[in-house]
Amino acid sequence: MITEKYQVTIHNSLTNQKEVFKPIQKGYVGVYLCGPTVYGDPHLGHARSAITFDVVTRYFRFLGNKVRYVRNITDVGHLEDEVAEQGEDKVSKKARLEQLEPMEIVQTYTLRYREAMNQLNNLPPSIEPTASGHILEQIKIIQRILDNGWAYEVDGSIYFDLQKYSKSENYGELSGKILEELQTNTRDTEGQDEKQHSHDFALWKKAKPEHIMRWESPWSVGFPGWHLECTAMSTKYLGKTFDIHGGGMDLQFPHHEAEIAQSIGAHGCQPVNYWMHNNMITIDGAKMSKSAGNFITTEEFFAGNHPRLEQAYSPMTVRFFILQAHYRSPIDFSNSALQAAEKGFKKLINTLDILPHLSHQPKKLDEKQDTELRQLTESCYEFMSDDFNTAKTLASLFELSSKFNAFKNKQLDSSKISAETFEFAKKTFEGMLADVLGLQKEAEAENQLTDDLISLLIELRHEARAKKDYGTSDKIRDDLNTIGVQLKDGKQGTEYSY
Amino acid sequence: MITEKYQVTIHNSLTNQKEVFKPIQKGYVGVYLCGPTVYGDPHLGHARSAITFDVVTRYFRFLGNKVRYVRNITDVGHLEDEVAEQGEDKVSKKARLEQLEPMEIVQTYTLRYREAMNQLNNLPPSIEPTASGHILEQIKIIQRILDNGWAYEVDGSIYFDLQKYSKSENYGELSGKILEELQTNTRDTEGQDEKQHSHDFALWKKAKPEHIMRWESPWSVGFPGWHLECTAMSTKYLGKTFDIHGGGMDLQFPHHEAEIAQSIGAHGCQPVNYWMHNNMITIDGAKMSKSAGNFITTEEFFAGNHPRLEQAYSPMTVRFFILQAHYRSPIDFSNSALQAAEKGFKKLINTLDILPHLSHQPKKLDEKQDTELRQLTESCYEFMSDDFNTAKTLASLFELSSKFNAFKNKQLDSSKISAETFEFAKKTFEGMLADVLGLQKEAEAENQLTDDLISLLIELRHEARAKKDYGTSDKIRDDLNTIGVQLKDGKQGTEYSY
Repeated sequence: MITEKYQVTIHNSLTNQKEVFKPIQKGYVGVYLCGPTVYGDPHLGHARSAITFDVVTRYFRFLGNKVRYVRNITDVGHLEDEVAEQGEDKVSKKARLEQLEPMEIVQTYTLRYREAMNQLNNLPPSIEPTASGHILEQIKIIQRILDNGWAYEVDGSIYFDLQKYSKSENYGELSGKILEELQTNTRDTEGQDEKQHSHDFALWKKAKPEHIMRWESPWSVGFPGWHLECTAMSTKYLGKTFDIHGGGMDLQFPHHEAEIAQSIGAHGCQPVNYWMHNNMITIDGAKMSKSAGNFITTEEFFAGNHPRLEQAYSPMTVRFFILQAHYRSPIDFSNSALQAAEKGFKKLINTLDILPHLSHQPKKLDEKQDTELRQLTESCYEFMSDDFNTAKTLASLFELSSKFNAFKNKQLDSSKISAETFEFAKKTFEGMLADVLGLQKEAEAENQLTDDLISLLIELRHEARAKKDYGTSDKIRDDLNTIGVQLKDGKQGTEYSY
Repeated sequence: MITEKYQVTIHNSLTNQKEVFKPIQKGYVGVYLCGPTVYGDPHLGHARSAITFDVVTRYFRFLGNKVRYVRNITDVGHLEDEVAEQGEDKVSKKARLEQLEPMEIVQTYTLRYREAMNQLNNLPPSIEPTASGHILEQIKIIQRILDNGWAYEVDGSIYFDLQKYSKSENYGELSGKILEELQTNTRDTEGQDEKQHSHDFALWKKAKPEHIMRWESPWSVGFPGWHLECTAMSTKYLGKTFDIHGGGMDLQFPHHEAEIAQSIGAHGCQPVNYWMHNNMITIDGAKMSKSAGNFITTEEFFAGNHPRLEQAYSPMTVRFFILQAHYRSPIDFSNSALQAAEKGFKKLINTLDILPHLSHQPKKLDEKQDTELRQLTESCYEFMSDDFNTAKTLASLFELSSKFNAFKNKQLDSSKISAETFEFAKKTFEGMLADVLGLQKEAEAENQLTDDLISLLIELRHEARAKKDYGTSDKIRDDLNTIGVQLKDGKQGTEYSY
């Protein structure tokens, strides 16, 4: 099988090297992705992360693996100031402002997130656990960390003891941060006094009276720290050590660094064999994020109703735009790049239509042409296996598209290609485009067809009138009316509505 | 405001009487519905329950109330033998058979349930909590019940003490069951020995070694009893006593009876002011259910691929079919009834199209006609307010539809109706149909248009040929081909594909 020829390599953020991927269990891949904090509309940053790891998952499945893909929903514990761990819970604050139960906020934005991910053709994860649904599991991990001596309690809150941890363990190994430097650069902020050191992070916070989301624990009525949920849920559904952990680069520190410390603290082992981080989407050079306030939501992209958008961009255009860059490269938002993506996407996707009609009768084999097509096809696997290089894979798919169009237009003679190579090229093109990259025809095509059909009928009606064949022209107008299409003749020509 | 004229009455299963609905807080309504156990595809029985309480929720909102609608997902604790509380957990068993993590099963069937509910145009609930996500809350309620002396522990499992409870409390008040009779009629089954009495029900079960889903508790590593989750989640999101609890009639006993006992046991109060139970869907006289094995899934209805189905029935046809009966009446499955529903739905929904084009110039008021139309319109509110009688409301909407069609065809003279009444009738028709009953045009209409347009073009091509106008007939074929529609002439006439 062709797919076994290619070893997948992954740039591991932990070692900062490209490594051959070796799953813990052959044929099975465990993937955990940090999902959204559901207190606002999904934006392009969320889309990039979800699309990146959707493609990772799809490619492993395409190669014949079983993948358990866990993508969580953060519905509790994510405070406004992530680093200082101060301020209100993001979900609670939204609930307070909108006078709703926090879980109503969670439901609203979880639904919107799922809807957007669905529109972008991201497959749903295998498991979609929530932080608030795993309080008991989080308490258990805190207890273990306490038992192992890596955390301390102050007035009902539990903090991870980074000072102690960094003496024997390598804190900062993922992000390259050095604890001493961090400590030096941090001013003390109100309320942090109870921590022994400013970068110790909360595992459990005692709830202030105004804090709505709260649970009983052995230490206080409170809520879990933000970093803890991912350790609890990834351990529960993928094991103490699993294959791949994904997330945006901005989560490396402190979130993922804390996950490593928690796992070592609770289970004495590294949680993840391959850490993968997608780069950011920038707008005017700054990271697009909810907290920075410079984001454009997916819905705004799809509707085109944001001052920075010159037009609407369909979900598939957005997906294509994101996949045109390798996941480790930054992407800068621009209308021109999105417009180019729109054209590129249409060109590729329209090629799918010609494939079923492309007849192929091999006659005289031309070794050179045959090898060229086979190598071009194989390059799709090579690029995808090379740290999921969707940018280069798309380039190869464009070349394949040109070949198919040339076969169709007889500019190239397909009879010189062997049946095997021809079939391989076709199957790969379809598989890579639809199954791996998740690009598919959009409903717009259906509306387009309706518009094209009506335009053709209007044209025929004009021709009939020009010939004074009023029987036909009236029939067209009346029959259209019967099936619900109204024509209106005006100075600008004939308009229609339905 | 017209909507304030009508008091909603509800048949309360607890008192077995129709009562005027009085919310705990004016303008706010809390509704809890027992959602699905997610280990199989949703079927018509699930659809009925969800549609019934979707309409309850929609109507309260239509009348200007805020509704918090909680519909849970049962993902743990529902054992195969519900009454004897024996056998495997339903989700775990499916997971074992399919060699998946139980939460992968949960995700699969939760997604299918949500998708089906969405197709049926049920609005998503305000909160969609899961049983496994509320273990801590359940443990807390067990502790309270134990503290209050209503439960006992045997070897790490906790059972509700019905013998003791029924001495001072009215066990069976909802279902009319009498404990002594229940006890007499029950044979002892294996494993029930540890209960003091056979109808005591489990609050917490110690997990057997093979039981996958398990959590730590003060009593054992185990899992909550099935009845407990609804008490925990309704209390958390709606309060110790809330307005309306819904569910299928089959849940009255033992599930809802147990919920009452648990609430009284833990909080000393009735949990629910109005219990509402929808009747069953029967097939050959027997209740349609997963456990009985005689169910037809919603997907099978929509696709028409079940031996009992003569054709496919669209989601809106199924919704209309269910709403044609009052929720407290049984519905017997039959193809003829569904076919009638399909016609009825189309007639009503097509009336929506004529409303915007219905011009109205009031001239000479005819008091009798005006009053007739106003009363007919008001009857929609009267019927909906009368224990949500969708059957009678639909009948009124049909009459309104006939009026509108008669106005359109000039069989009735709309100029004799006052502007106010005319507007009231139109707004009510649209509001009741779309907002309250949740009936809407289906995408099929769009495909239908495409097919109609192509058929018209084929007809024009035949006419052109008959006239030997080959220029036009060729143009039609070629232009269709360009926009992606292929014609194929055969003995049966011209076929097309796109």
